[in-house]
Amino acid sequence: MASQLLPLELVDKCVGSRIWVVMKGEKEFSGTLVGFDDYVNMVLEDVTEYESNGEQVKLKKILLNGNNICMLIPGGDGPSGATAVS
Amino acid sequence: MASQLLPLELVDKCVGSRIWVVMKGEKEFSGTLVGFDDYVNMVLEDVTEYESNGEQVKLKKILLNGNNICMLIPGGDGPSGATAVS
Amino acid sequence: MASQLLPLELVDKCVGSRIWVVMKGEKEFSGTLVGFDDYVNMVLEDVTEYESNGEQVKLKKILLNGNNICMLIPGGDGPSGATAVS
Amino acid sequence: MASQLLPLELVDKCVGSRIWVVMKGEKEFSGTLVGFDDYVNMVLEDVTEYESNGEQVKLKKILLNGNNICMLIPGGDGPSGATAVS
Amino acid sequence: MASQLLPLELVDKCVGSRIWVVMKGEKEFSGTLVGFDDYVNMVLEDVTEYESNGEQVKLKKILLNGNNICMLIPGGDGPSGATAVS
Amino acid sequence: MASQLLPLELVDKCVGSRIWVVMKGEKEFSGTLVGFDDYVNMVLEDVTEYESNGEQVKLKKILLNGNNICMLIPGGDGPSGATAVS
Amino acid sequence: MASQLLPLELVDKCVGSRIWVVMKGEKEFSGTLVGFDDYVNMVLEDVTEYESNGEQVKLKKILLNGNNICMLIPGGDGPSGATAVS
Repeated sequence: MASQLLPLELVDKCVGSRIWVVMKGEKEFSGTLVGFDDYVNMVLEDVTEYESNGEQVKLKKILLNGNNICMLIPGGDGPSGATAVS
Repeated sequence: MASQLLPLELVDKCVGSRIWVVMKGEKEFSGTLVGFDDYVNMVLEDVTEYESNGEQVKLKKILLNGNNICMLIPGGDGPSGATAVS
Repeated sequence: MASQLLPLELVDKCVGSRIWVVMKGEKEFSGTLVGFDDYVNMVLEDVTEYESNGEQVKLKKILLNGNNICMLIPGGDGPSGATAVS
Repeated sequence: MASQLLPLELVDKCVGSRIWVVMKGEKEFSGTLVGFDDYVNMVLEDVTEYESNGEQVKLKKILLNGNNICMLIPGGDGPSGATAVS
Repeated sequence: MASQLLPLELVDKCVGSRIWVVMKGEKEFSGTLVGFDDYVNMVLEDVTEYESNGEQVKLKKILLNGNNICMLIPGGDGPSGATAVS
Repeated sequence: MASQLLPLELVDKCVGSRIWVVMKGEKEFSGTLVGFDDYVNMVLEDVTEYESNGEQVKLKKILLNGNNICMLIPGGDGPSGATAVS
Repeated sequence: MASQLLPLELVDKCVGSRIWVVMKGEKEFSGTLVGFDDYVNMVLEDVTEYESNGEQVKLKKILLNGNNICMLIPGGDGPSGATAVS
């Protein structure tokens, strides 16, 4: 087996850093990861929530249900920080 | 591993305080957290329920099914207490 | 940890009393709680079922699947008993 | 804890009697309960199936998947046997 | 407890006989049950698949995922074999 | 209990042969089964994917999530190989 | 039992190589697999995300929730790399 970066190792390395989280529904969040557990429930600080209609909401601290998370992007700063190439 | 704030620690710190809960569907609740369990089922008191059509309903005490919870915001006081920045 | 009211304690205290149950779909029920189990499956008596179209149906005794329950409100007497404030 | 009627006790008491079952989708069934297991999978006899379009279908014996059951009503005889009061 | 016909006993008795299976979506199947397991995954032979648009497809042997099964009807021969009474 | 063909036995017998797989959504696949596990995750080779709009895509090797599989048909060669009889 | 390529063996062989991942919703990703766990949560690097509207987004590293994955294609390079034959 090649040397791997395990999923929970990646999450652990993100503690203290900005991440971008895409939920199963239409919500997305960027924030500083301050903690997580084995179910990948996550605590974020200094959060921006991105609604599907383009609205943004600032939140100081949130807890996200790991079941509802689709994708985590380390260092991400929300939809505006990604590079569209199409 | 950096020092963390674990998800259940955050929930535990919220006992006795106001929180804002966003469910998987369109319902949102603000209330005082009076208890929770390992499935993050939660008991809230002095609750305001926010419907998707803008209506609000006052409820004295409720139990929420943890499976249906998408996000918890400590100190939150419902949609009106957030800062829209878009 | 602050003194808590655990979710199953709240359900247990409701045995013998009227409760209001909101299901994941559009159904709501008020009735007297006569029993429950660890999955929060619940037996209700003297039940009124509230359909989304405003219709009400009287039922003597029902068993509700705990997986499908979104919210329990102690002492509730259905949508008509809540205080709309918006 | 008050004296309770546990959910599985209620189901057990219904063996040999008519029950009414509401599934998560739009189907409803009335029939004689002839058996069940811990997942509340149920065997019914002399069944009437009620479709959402008002059609009824007679079935001699069926097995229902407990995961898909939303509500059980003892002694029920389908939508026509309930009392609408709105 | 009254003498029961347990769900898995019913399925076991159906081995070698025609059954009718209704899936959670819109598909229905009739066929000869040739095997099943504890998750009620089922192997059927000489199968007719009934689509929601009225089309029928003949299949020699299939395996159905038990999670997706809503209802099993012993001796059933598809929608055409039921008695509509409404 | 009659002599049975257990579901996992059927899958095992299909290793090395063409199968047709119908997913819970609208996708269907035909391919040679090269492996599976207890969750019925499956590896297929020389795959044709059938989209709901009639398009076909050739894929050399794929892994399918067993949770998402609705039906497996041994020897099947996709929608075109079935016999419509309605 | 014929010699098999087990699903997790296939995933393990893909570590260090390009893969194409189709999620349960409409998202698809191509990237280099750098790690996975028993739930088939996966870490990808040098990722292109393909939206259903044809847009592409470049992402350096992502973690995908295994529950949400429908299909993995080794060596795949996204929708443009497949051969449409219909």
